Amino acid sequence: MQQLSGNLFIISAPSGAGKSTLIQALLKRYSDMRLSVSHTTRAPRAGEQDGVHYHFTTIPDFQQRIANGEFLESAEVFGNYYGTSAQAIRELLSQGIDVFLDIDWQGAQQIRAKVAGTIGIFILPPSLDALQQRLTHRATDSAEVIAKRMAQAQSEMSHAFEYDYLIINDQLEQAYNELERIVLAQRNRFSSQAHRQQALLEQLLAKAAK
Amino acid sequence: MQQLSGNLFIISAPSGAGKSTLIQALLKRYSDMRLSVSHTTRAPRAGEQDGVHYHFTTIPDFQQRIANGEFLESAEVFGNYYGTSAQAIRELLSQGIDVFLDIDWQGAQQIRAKVAGTIGIFILPPSLDALQQRLTHRATDSAEVIAKRMAQAQSEMSHAFEYDYLIINDQLEQAYNELERIVLAQRNRFSSQAHRQQALLEQLLAKAAK
Repeated sequence: MQQLSGNLFIISAPSGAGKSTLIQALLKRYSDMRLSVSHTTRAPRAGEQDGVHYHFTTIPDFQQRIANGEFLESAEVFGNYYGTSAQAIRELLSQGIDVFLDIDWQGAQQIRAKVAGTIGIFILPPSLDALQQRLTHRATDSAEVIAKRMAQAQSEMSHAFEYDYLIINDQLEQAYNELERIVLAQRNRFSSQAHRQQALLEQLLAKAAK
Repeated sequence: MQQLSGNLFIISAPSGAGKSTLIQALLKRYSDMRLSVSHTTRAPRAGEQDGVHYHFTTIPDFQQRIANGEFLESAEVFGNYYGTSAQAIRELLSQGIDVFLDIDWQGAQQIRAKVAGTIGIFILPPSLDALQQRLTHRATDSAEVIAKRMAQAQSEMSHAFEYDYLIINDQLEQAYNELERIVLAQRNRFSSQAHRQQALLEQLLAKAAK
């Protein structure tokens, strides 16, 4: 994928770390940031809109897209396919929009292998106890379901070291501030500025090179 | 140099870009950030205090320190020596303090070669015209002196691409915000968090790895 002016962020977290809340708060504030919408073959749930929550599609269509190499990452979970289309992301990035991928460590590994310059952010709970409380907070869940979620969360967390940045979500406002500044700071990276400030840099640095 | 919990920032800019103002604003606000104090053999100017503006010393002492390998970088300018002592920086970093080195591209290259994980920030003026105006603003300077400064500024700017981050100082407040968030965002880097949040990460990630 060629160098583009927006940045591509991979955000992962165990369930219960508050990832969605943090991302939504950022998207609400910045019109030039967008969450990537995945393709899926699973049926829409109540309230889910095509093109908003997912691009809903069929298994044959999804498999054709895999064959066409359309996905940056894809996975099959309990017979349903999920994938991230390269095309949609490329278009957003070329418009200078920062794109967030809300995916797990496996998807993240696939993306990193295909796209240079991604920024990985991992969100952690402030303790195992807090995580357990957050996962237990859903009154409808059985102890077994919670134990399973804790095991899943711990498995996800064991990949935190593969990410560039780490946010401990203890106080939501503090965690939000950290996420915001990490995301905004990337716009000052030399590679980003080379796109955003191309004319200025040509003036300042080309003349300077004489 | 071993991994430490503070971050080491190299800040460079052409004269007139507003670097000192930006750094001072940051230091005023954060007690856990510090500007590295260089050693020099030149005589103190009016108002300069030993240990605050510089560590003033003699040429034989300075040369002995060079021989001892005490400096991360050093240079001789018009018969005077300037250098950055490794020891003082190491102590600050080990206390979790972020340290700023206000040095030119040559010093930056020396530091980068010796210290892993430095963060380079280059500050640029918004245009050559603005730079010329800022350098001309000192009424006491002759046209010749200004032309010499412009040439020097352009030579410095030709190394901007060697830095990790680029800040265009057009509006001071905006430039300050960008500097602040770049500096603070580094504290969320996995390598920084591994020090700052060691106990928590051991709890979360060690258990997760089981």
